Amino acid sequence: MKEALLSIIKDENRIITGPIDPQYLSDNLGRKKGTAEAVVFPVSTEEISGVMRYAWKNNLPVTPRGAGMNLVGSTVPSGHGIVLDVSLMNHVLELDEETFTATVEPGVVLEDFQAYVESKGLFYPPDPGEKKATIGGNISTNAGGMRAVKYGVTRDYVMGLELVLADGTVVMAGSKNRKDTSGLDLKEIVIGSEGTLAVITKCILKLIPKPEDSLSVLLSFDSLKAGIESVRQIIQANLNPTAMEFIERKVIQLGEDYLKMSFPEPEASAYVLTTLDGSRNEINDHLEGLRKVAKESGALSILPLEDKEEAARVWKIRGMLVKGVEAVSEQEPLDIVVPINQIDAFVNFVNAFEKECGMRMISFGHAGDGNVHLCVVRGDRDDETWEKELDANLTVLYDKAYALGGLASGEHGIGLSKQKYLLKASKPENIALMKRVKAAFDEKNILNAGISYNV
Amino acid sequence: MKEALLSIIKDENRIITGPIDPQYLSDNLGRKKGTAEAVVFPVSTEEISGVMRYAWKNNLPVTPRGAGMNLVGSTVPSGHGIVLDVSLMNHVLELDEETFTATVEPGVVLEDFQAYVESKGLFYPPDPGEKKATIGGNISTNAGGMRAVKYGVTRDYVMGLELVLADGTVVMAGSKNRKDTSGLDLKEIVIGSEGTLAVITKCILKLIPKPEDSLSVLLSFDSLKAGIESVRQIIQANLNPTAMEFIERKVIQLGEDYLKMSFPEPEASAYVLTTLDGSRNEINDHLEGLRKVAKESGALSILPLEDKEEAARVWKIRGMLVKGVEAVSEQEPLDIVVPINQIDAFVNFVNAFEKECGMRMISFGHAGDGNVHLCVVRGDRDDETWEKELDANLTVLYDKAYALGGLASGEHGIGLSKQKYLLKASKPENIALMKRVKAAFDEKNILNAGISYNV
Repeated sequence: MKEALLSIIKDENRIITGPIDPQYLSDNLGRKKGTAEAVVFPVSTEEISGVMRYAWKNNLPVTPRGAGMNLVGSTVPSGHGIVLDVSLMNHVLELDEETFTATVEPGVVLEDFQAYVESKGLFYPPDPGEKKATIGGNISTNAGGMRAVKYGVTRDYVMGLELVLADGTVVMAGSKNRKDTSGLDLKEIVIGSEGTLAVITKCILKLIPKPEDSLSVLLSFDSLKAGIESVRQIIQANLNPTAMEFIERKVIQLGEDYLKMSFPEPEASAYVLTTLDGSRNEINDHLEGLRKVAKESGALSILPLEDKEEAARVWKIRGMLVKGVEAVSEQEPLDIVVPINQIDAFVNFVNAFEKECGMRMISFGHAGDGNVHLCVVRGDRDDETWEKELDANLTVLYDKAYALGGLASGEHGIGLSKQKYLLKASKPENIALMKRVKAAFDEKNILNAGISYNV
Repeated sequence: MKEALLSIIKDENRIITGPIDPQYLSDNLGRKKGTAEAVVFPVSTEEISGVMRYAWKNNLPVTPRGAGMNLVGSTVPSGHGIVLDVSLMNHVLELDEETFTATVEPGVVLEDFQAYVESKGLFYPPDPGEKKATIGGNISTNAGGMRAVKYGVTRDYVMGLELVLADGTVVMAGSKNRKDTSGLDLKEIVIGSEGTLAVITKCILKLIPKPEDSLSVLLSFDSLKAGIESVRQIIQANLNPTAMEFIERKVIQLGEDYLKMSFPEPEASAYVLTTLDGSRNEINDHLEGLRKVAKESGALSILPLEDKEEAARVWKIRGMLVKGVEAVSEQEPLDIVVPINQIDAFVNFVNAFEKECGMRMISFGHAGDGNVHLCVVRGDRDDETWEKELDANLTVLYDKAYALGGLASGEHGIGLSKQKYLLKASKPENIALMKRVKAAFDEKNILNAGISYNV
């Protein structure tokens, strides 16, 4: 294989065969370990096309990866195949200020890209928690994040994708045009497909002007139910916040302990942490609206975090919740999504189930879009007990989510980790149709062959 | 066939066999005429599934239609098949104010739906010109319209679709969840697929709260170029208008003559007609921003249309441009889209080409998203001359659009009318992939079999 790859990637420093560093055989959690014969680091569409032609001809599995920040085993290879690492393809190819678009390679890191466009007075709204993920990875999971409630998810900012199909064919799907009803919109089915349909080699992204200012506002409540009800009122009042996070007091303590920082309003039971953005006038206008909602919804307090340092501290505690959990124990990170009126019912169920099953569960998340982040905590269980109890408890949690009209994943994807639960909850006709679409792109099933609807 | 259909649709008043009214064999223009053996008017998913199972078994072409308002021959049947008219499925099944969603049947008429949700303090932003089209039709063409610049297109408001596949299988794709990375997002490839992949039988739509107020503002310029440049500045200044329409003075005259109404600022060469919406404070804030842009971009004038009657009159003239053209002559309506910085180049090309080829061409459209509506006017040409010259001229126009990075259709779809031009401009690998995706949904190619990428 080495010689064949060397005839395509003409630089032996960009090919690994023989012993492979485990980081290329796993995801960001590192629990699942896969196998591969080679890792390649292409620098162009042509090289990727060459690798795919070779793999296609020889029926070799190919697993694309960017920074490998995923949490669900979507970059865990299997068999004697090739790991296709696009992290060297990390260039912004064009910033077109006349059409408000950027054309980038898939390996561009999200936080680098955000900083770059903001330095030009522009803004790329998708903002998932993991800033070191790549744009290609974000597109492959249709990454969401905190700003989704106002600005939408990654899908809403993808205007075009250059794709290399499993057989090496290069297809440009989409363009710099803001409307498109010119045949099937092929890029739309690739977004969120977790590397199973094609390798993304170029991305045309939509940008917007950078908002003038922003202000975070913390609302405190005596129950999560009251907090969630206020979210509906905030939406109805057209206050259009950038973020609306719900956090229970018992969860905040974890972040406080981890960071040795204190969160405001410690006597509350639950918080809704929002951000307003826009011109100063708009922010003031919407802050007034928030005060009205706070009053009507019986909030204990409303605290505009005008001090930027205090705002940063509050968001840091929110941002570090997962790390706070992980400082204590291994955990399984879930990203269940439910309709926005079912958040309270779901979190209450989790709280009751936690007591019943004896496994610690920490939930918080994006109240504006029903996306509940749930850390299921291992504690001091041995391997076998953890695996067995975790599976049993996840089955209960996913069953409940689906019973409430929810889904297994709002933004992490399905990967290997949630395959079983997705398949259990999905109708056979949906899975059959997904398989046929997969075959339309990759008849030999060589791209990320182990994933979910593929099997 | 009648007996078989009667065993599925148990009401002979909802089946036509024998002589078929030509309206069911054409589109809204009525120029292309198709053939069919029967028209059915199902009232349920079950009936549609039954009709599809019958058609699948007997290899009969099926052409779905709603109100038949399309302009591109996407409801023109062929062969001895079935026209499947969903216009009786016109019920709003649920308005869920807690999740800000509505679940509707595909035959619900857009203007009825808009009025209904607005009466509840909610808002459905997609607003294509043709208000008598159905929601199912809007989804099938991913309809855009004037508000797309701020609110996006139909795709952005489709959360879930119940589909009947060509073989009669019922698939629910999507849900009331606001984020979804749970397997391939099947609904996304169906949106804009012009009835070729599946029959839409139920639609879960996203709603937003109704904006408090709106204000239209007319900017006048001494050239189209200056007007288009102001559009970029309006976007960059984050003024977020709902609509941004460009119209040349020579085009406005048509509407004035047709309606016997006068448009303001008659000495200008070009206009940008915008609407601001939101709270009164937001509108005032953005109006101030517009004044600044108007000054910087050398606008001749800026006219806030505070008088609702005057605003209505101005929009009526804009809305009646196509009718104004049609009062004089038959015309071919195009909806070419180009990147937003190419509008001026494209319209200038059209103006020069009009003189060169001697066929009248009227262009106006959505400046915020590059969607140029172009009426190509027949005049007194006889059938043969019109057909020949139109084809030659369309070839030139589409070639130019593609050369500028544009596309054949921004919102009308491809249908039968633009098939030739789409195929000419598309790479064979894109068309091949579209055909494979089509086959994944409809291996026998019975659904809207004549359309574009199908053939």
